[in-house]
Amino acid sequence: MRLSRYFLPVLKETPAEAQIVSHRYMLRAGMIKQASAGIYSWLPLGFKVLRKIENIIHEEQARAGHIAMQMPTIQSADLWRESGRYDAYGEEMLRITDRHDREMLFTPTAEELITDIFRSYVKSYKDLPLTLYQIQWKFRDEIRPRFGVMRGREFYMKDGYNFDLTKEDALHAYNRHLVSYLRTYERMGLQAIPMRADSGPIGGDNTHEFLVLAETGESEVFYDAQITDLKFGDREIDFDSHEQCRAVLDEFTSRYARTDETHDEAVWAEVPEERKRTARGIEVGQIFYFGTKYSDAMGATVQDSEGGKVPVHMGSHGIGVSRLLGAIIEASHDDKGIIWPEGVTPFHCGIVNLKQGDDEADAACESLYASLTALGLEPLYDDRNERAGGKFATMDLIGLPWRITVGPRGLKNGVVEVTSRRTGESEELPPEQAVEKIARIYGVLGA
Amino acid sequence: MRLSRYFLPVLKETPAEAQIVSHRYMLRAGMIKQASAGIYSWLPLGFKVLRKIENIIHEEQARAGHIAMQMPTIQSADLWRESGRYDAYGEEMLRITDRHDREMLFTPTAEELITDIFRSYVKSYKDLPLTLYQIQWKFRDEIRPRFGVMRGREFYMKDGYNFDLTKEDALHAYNRHLVSYLRTYERMGLQAIPMRADSGPIGGDNTHEFLVLAETGESEVFYDAQITDLKFGDREIDFDSHEQCRAVLDEFTSRYARTDETHDEAVWAEVPEERKRTARGIEVGQIFYFGTKYSDAMGATVQDSEGGKVPVHMGSHGIGVSRLLGAIIEASHDDKGIIWPEGVTPFHCGIVNLKQGDDEADAACESLYASLTALGLEPLYDDRNERAGGKFATMDLIGLPWRITVGPRGLKNGVVEVTSRRTGESEELPPEQAVEKIARIYGVLGA
Repeated sequence: MRLSRYFLPVLKETPAEAQIVSHRYMLRAGMIKQASAGIYSWLPLGFKVLRKIENIIHEEQARAGHIAMQMPTIQSADLWRESGRYDAYGEEMLRITDRHDREMLFTPTAEELITDIFRSYVKSYKDLPLTLYQIQWKFRDEIRPRFGVMRGREFYMKDGYNFDLTKEDALHAYNRHLVSYLRTYERMGLQAIPMRADSGPIGGDNTHEFLVLAETGESEVFYDAQITDLKFGDREIDFDSHEQCRAVLDEFTSRYARTDETHDEAVWAEVPEERKRTARGIEVGQIFYFGTKYSDAMGATVQDSEGGKVPVHMGSHGIGVSRLLGAIIEASHDDKGIIWPEGVTPFHCGIVNLKQGDDEADAACESLYASLTALGLEPLYDDRNERAGGKFATMDLIGLPWRITVGPRGLKNGVVEVTSRRTGESEELPPEQAVEKIARIYGVLGA
Repeated sequence: MRLSRYFLPVLKETPAEAQIVSHRYMLRAGMIKQASAGIYSWLPLGFKVLRKIENIIHEEQARAGHIAMQMPTIQSADLWRESGRYDAYGEEMLRITDRHDREMLFTPTAEELITDIFRSYVKSYKDLPLTLYQIQWKFRDEIRPRFGVMRGREFYMKDGYNFDLTKEDALHAYNRHLVSYLRTYERMGLQAIPMRADSGPIGGDNTHEFLVLAETGESEVFYDAQITDLKFGDREIDFDSHEQCRAVLDEFTSRYARTDETHDEAVWAEVPEERKRTARGIEVGQIFYFGTKYSDAMGATVQDSEGGKVPVHMGSHGIGVSRLLGAIIEASHDDKGIIWPEGVTPFHCGIVNLKQGDDEADAACESLYASLTALGLEPLYDDRNERAGGKFATMDLIGLPWRITVGPRGLKNGVVEVTSRRTGESEELPPEQAVEKIARIYGVLGA
């Protein structure tokens, strides 16, 4: 993309309403614009990151064998009455009356609707196990929306639902989601720690939240320092294997890690003093096993192998997609702006032309742009007629992990400069080697 | 995907509520399920096609230089008061009151919000031209929703908005959209004819609808038979060139083609009798130029090159994404089911194992599956322990354009059968040549 043809409305001033760094930078980098309280438009740069995150989730869900679908945002109140949640949900549910005076709502989550779909079609244990998921807009009418996309009213969420014949199978689905989420967050450059949690209005006993450590987190967290050494990494895993998924769960949840909601001083006391850590954390996902809570209430049964009718065991599993942008920025920024992890960066690198209009510099930039694009990479070329300082400030603010700087002086020596946004380190390279370096970083050339 | 692990709830019976063929087949093929009147869940097969269509639109919008973003579904009534449309829109607008008693609405279209975004950031003619678009869920509270996704209440729509300094530039944006839409529909296997239309509540004089000819279309259409010979095809076009885009518009709109809304008997009389055609058509998109209607009302101005403030010229451009699934099926089916065009098919081909459990047949299917997958193709392998007849009926119903049939008898002769869903013609080929044939059809091997 050429910046002269893009829509990147960066702001010099920090909007007064933004209290935390991710909100400030998302506004300043032209990623979002508030439309109403707690409701945002996703400007092009923000939308690109949202799509990248969405795609990673789709890929990782497919890897785990989960099936994508999509449910509507507006649902009938009647379904929610079957589970008893229509009355229980309170004022956070956005309730709507349509032109025929039917009671509707904007879905905050979808256990009822997915259970209705399940019971309409699935009659036999032979069709299990089954995990369906969607990535869809949700609404919670927060009384005081704040912190930008971190606690908005309209938000983008991945919500998945497993249906299993037995508790054991459903717990495997739970474990499988935990494994899948660890992979998913790591691909986004995040360390998200599973912590034992409260189930809240979803219900059930087994539940873990995934928390990203950040000073601005809404939760106080208590954890054993050993936990931050754990990496899921590149390990191959058979998502059908109960043992393999269970082993990952054990590895990642056997050390103490809880939020203030579930913190237990007696257990905490057993953690060696030198490994005790307290910090703040941002919740970016949660998994639940809640057994037959919804299948009992809504009559979602299947025939088992002996011909008897049994309620299915279920769980639900969520990732806060729009909120993740905020969490990633909270975890990865400096005082100049955002620092995107390579996995989610809106553009793979920036190209800064120090002397727009100089034939040689223009030609070198065009050539870099063409070479990178031909490799399937997406550079953002700042081709505006602006001072170098302004161009650098914009690149630093929007946080592309790599920048190629092109100027007449370097070109005289046959080089351009490749700079890491994270370390600030620069390297002078001939243009073709600069392209090769970027290509290797993104894995589009062999290592 | 292996069918045994997929969620494809095909129905044997035709649901009574479905009056048109696309609605019937979408329900029977397990693509959608009604959640409330005019509101559908997109089951996995339907969601896959929806995503394919969405991706084609994103690719073609990018090719035309348009910038993707996303606006929220819930918007404030205040903005809509600025344009005067809050009161004008009538009961089709889903009006909502939030917990703080603020008047909100579920957006049926987004001229107001995009104009607000524009006026907040863009101050100079130097930032023009600019075209922003989104693909997002919309809601129109139809009094009598019907025909499945063709006239639903919650629907998925691409809506784009151009901002230009002059009427001439805005008309170029209009023409550019027309060109881009022709390409877009053709990639989906559709012939969509631009017809002069009424502007309705959007406003403006210049507007064309794109209609797909189909018996069940809601509009009566009158056209010159020469128009159906026109193909956009593979032609290269410079979307920045006013002349090139204008030439395409002239070519595709110079012959008579109108709906009953704009039909003009006097002009119609000039069409040679033998070329006159009347038919029915499904509207799948519409483009508008409406000048300064919203920029005047909402104060969206820029500084021109002489320092004066001028209102921007705008247009808006929509594609009915969810409705397109219905339109494609109306245009492409037979009495056994859907016939997907290759561009939008949910899976590239089916693999039918005639004798599940037979070692050789199973191994041959697995090998085909692996080879196709390695090429980046997505086959649907019917690995269920079902009769051949049932497997064929399912494949015909869900409409994958190609089927590979594998059975012990063929394998004895070293062949499998490749069948075209459209023609019903079969060809016996060694497995590796079957893979090659499918790969060539989808352009993943050189021709």
